[in-house]
Amino acid sequence: MTPTITAFVNSPDRGRGLARDMRVRWALEEVGEPYKVRLLSFAEMKEPAHLALHPFGQIPTYEEDGLALFETGAIVFHIAEHHAGLLPVEPHARARAITWMFAALNTMEPPILEREYAMLTERDKPWATERLPMLEDRIRNRLGALSVRLGEADWLDSAFSAGDLMMAGVLLRLKSSNLLDEHPNLAAYVARAEARPAYQRAFAAQLAVFTATENG
Amino acid sequence: MTPTITAFVNSPDRGRGLARDMRVRWALEEVGEPYKVRLLSFAEMKEPAHLALHPFGQIPTYEEDGLALFETGAIVFHIAEHHAGLLPVEPHARARAITWMFAALNTMEPPILEREYAMLTERDKPWATERLPMLEDRIRNRLGALSVRLGEADWLDSAFSAGDLMMAGVLLRLKSSNLLDEHPNLAAYVARAEARPAYQRAFAAQLAVFTATENG
Repeated sequence: MTPTITAFVNSPDRGRGLARDMRVRWALEEVGEPYKVRLLSFAEMKEPAHLALHPFGQIPTYEEDGLALFETGAIVFHIAEHHAGLLPVEPHARARAITWMFAALNTMEPPILEREYAMLTERDKPWATERLPMLEDRIRNRLGALSVRLGEADWLDSAFSAGDLMMAGVLLRLKSSNLLDEHPNLAAYVARAEARPAYQRAFAAQLAVFTATENG
Repeated sequence: MTPTITAFVNSPDRGRGLARDMRVRWALEEVGEPYKVRLLSFAEMKEPAHLALHPFGQIPTYEEDGLALFETGAIVFHIAEHHAGLLPVEPHARARAITWMFAALNTMEPPILEREYAMLTERDKPWATERLPMLEDRIRNRLGALSVRLGEADWLDSAFSAGDLMMAGVLLRLKSSNLLDEHPNLAAYVARAEARPAYQRAFAAQLAVFTATENG
């Protein structure tokens, strides 16, 4: 049975690949699994039908054969566990790839989201100009550590994995800042991820939704 | 081979179970796996030997049979995957338990940590009194959704799982606030988690480290 995911009918990022369905689309493209998409408005995301799938009223969700999942990391992991291509077979390498998934979501993404959140909701507050550099320094701290670990390697632990998919997906949020460019190896890492054919197909698919909405 | 984890020699929470080694200790106690602990000072956490294990220079880490992991979520998942007791065997229930692990770490914990971070680093800033209620409302928003989903159930998805361990571990960070008490079912959920013998053993073990350091 073809899985169904949910996505924004009108993504706030204007189709630039930052909405979280992008990571799920990308994972499905990496493993060559077709999928259907159900588009939701912000109002529909908060209705009982969607809250039954996603208790926090967000996207994406994933439905397949009586299984309903939410939370991007869990969905990508489920895809990676059930198809070849996103997790190494060797047990130790597999555990390390999973470690990078969690590191992307629990160590790297929170300060990056915090900066986005502050720019969105606190931009006009009197403290914005003093606080933004503090937030950026928190991100720099994490980027510096990641840059050292990556070094000259192409991916975080030998071959591309769900850990790289998740980490690159998180770092892509920084493209509109200059923070990523302070570490050329991280900028190259993200560019390498974006160049993957599976990424390109996923990006085109989510952009097509936004373009259709805009013109519709 | 008995695994070795790392923990603070002098935990900033004064042994109240909030340092992240607690979640790993708890998981190991739930599955009945003995473990060794290597204690680290803040200075040692930033030294090359530890950075080789943990690129972000934090605790906990996990070492076993040539495998080295960092990131609490990944370590708890590794323990849950290799021992009975923390993940259901039925595939759909297993995927849902993993979903709650990710939800705890990527949806629930970030606003809670942000509040802690602000109280620690921005308490004396002129914006502190205006911003703290904003942070608390972000947490309330998430707690409200979680409370609705939990309802009158004991655990998030039938039997206790690694998803509950992680969620309760995150919610415990709110015990020093009044936020948890606004949802009696969540307060009871956390109390139910704390009452588990495995939690109690893990709590006693990490408190003993702090007590020994304090008296030593």
